[in-house]
Amino acid sequence: MRIASPAGLAFAGLPPSQARAQFRTGTSTPTAGWSLGYAQANLLAVPREWAYDVLLFAQRNPKACPVLDVTEVGSWTPPSTPGADLRVDLPRYRVWRDGEVVQEPIDVTHVWTDDIVGFLFGCSFTFESALVDAGVPLRHVEQGVNVPMYRTVLPCRPAGRLHASLVVSMRPIPACQVATAVTASARFPGSHGAPVHVGAPELLGIADLDEPDYGDPVRFEDGDVAVFWACGVTSQAAVMASQSPFAITHVPGHMFITDILEADIRER
Amino acid sequence: MRIASPAGLAFAGLPPSQARAQFRTGTSTPTAGWSLGYAQANLLAVPREWAYDVLLFAQRNPKACPVLDVTEVGSWTPPSTPGADLRVDLPRYRVWRDGEVVQEPIDVTHVWTDDIVGFLFGCSFTFESALVDAGVPLRHVEQGVNVPMYRTVLPCRPAGRLHASLVVSMRPIPACQVATAVTASARFPGSHGAPVHVGAPELLGIADLDEPDYGDPVRFEDGDVAVFWACGVTSQAAVMASQSPFAITHVPGHMFITDILEADIRER
Repeated sequence: MRIASPAGLAFAGLPPSQARAQFRTGTSTPTAGWSLGYAQANLLAVPREWAYDVLLFAQRNPKACPVLDVTEVGSWTPPSTPGADLRVDLPRYRVWRDGEVVQEPIDVTHVWTDDIVGFLFGCSFTFESALVDAGVPLRHVEQGVNVPMYRTVLPCRPAGRLHASLVVSMRPIPACQVATAVTASARFPGSHGAPVHVGAPELLGIADLDEPDYGDPVRFEDGDVAVFWACGVTSQAAVMASQSPFAITHVPGHMFITDILEADIRER
Repeated sequence: MRIASPAGLAFAGLPPSQARAQFRTGTSTPTAGWSLGYAQANLLAVPREWAYDVLLFAQRNPKACPVLDVTEVGSWTPPSTPGADLRVDLPRYRVWRDGEVVQEPIDVTHVWTDDIVGFLFGCSFTFESALVDAGVPLRHVEQGVNVPMYRTVLPCRPAGRLHASLVVSMRPIPACQVATAVTASARFPGSHGAPVHVGAPELLGIADLDEPDYGDPVRFEDGDVAVFWACGVTSQAAVMASQSPFAITHVPGHMFITDILEADIRER
């Protein structure tokens, strides 16, 4: 989940199609900092028979699962990104059966049957860029660690067979910049939007910020406040909690790089 | 579609539950001006087997079909409006078979089977209130006619078996107030949001503004410009164009009155 990519690095300026081509031919690395300016996406692919539940879950929980695109049944190319192949264009996948990860391959061609529908949800990388542009420091980037994520006690709205508790990502923000972080991220509803919670982690059921459920702990600077955003990992939590028979997702941090300009999903 | 309801009229101040009770017991009249301050909604109810196509169509065409709520399969009560009964709480319905209206009853209990899913889409009444609040005149209201609606040549994004051309509503707006009309309606994405087109009706394929496809022609005042908004009737156009085997909708103007406060669907 690192976005600490010195702008000089070659992958920061790679056009998305060239980035995808690298992953397609075997490169397997987190995508933070790749193809700056383009939206990256969470992938959740399910059999058609589960597609309505997924789309309704996303509609009912838009902060966790902001829909960027949906493939046609059996297609591996999202309409927004012609030429892409969701079966091979991500650096690493998770294959889920009955709510458990059974494989983490770099290619899911062998399991992408003709009844699969792929959903792409917005990713925090986009609003993190907006925070940086607004002068808000990202502690996890400064410290070179993954952003910490936590399961909360906040129930998502269930949809059909899908249910989950909300997963949040947390960033320590200087108290004097919390308002800026709120307004800057709020402009990106396609990328989780404004925070869901500021301070008081105990109300989310988080006992210890130093023990995240995913990602790494991050160190607070004096005067930092814990700010929590809805997280796309919630969709994987739903697959797990609901023991859905089959799903394909990305490995956290190993996102799909779309052709969608971040500027185009900014609220106007 | 009249919203010309002198504020003194009793129905303007009726709580939504009482308005629904009147329709439930047989009152059949357009709902414009009823229960001011509460969102009214377009209804499209389809068999579960078509629900994914409808939700995907709405996701791909959010200006025409902004989703306010979705019922559980077989339920007639939208989660946002406890106690409501979508089978009897609207003043008049259309029952569609193979893309054609076969009935316009005031009660659809007999056809609401246990596999029906009801979708509620936002309605222009909400942003019209915002226009009035912003001092923008509504010519169709001044003239006591229904708002004119037109089929356009703009294709909606298809979804599964559903396809349609966009239907728009048109309001003549004084040239000096077009910008105000844009910004005031833009704050209500759950109610079609900002206009899709200003001026130049010929580019929409509209040959004669005096001959709307639905509703009534409206007279322009000197200096008025034609402003076009996406219209919820698009969902009925999709049922028609796609010859979907079965659907239930409201009769245009005879909306479902929700318990959702208009203030709660205003963008913040």
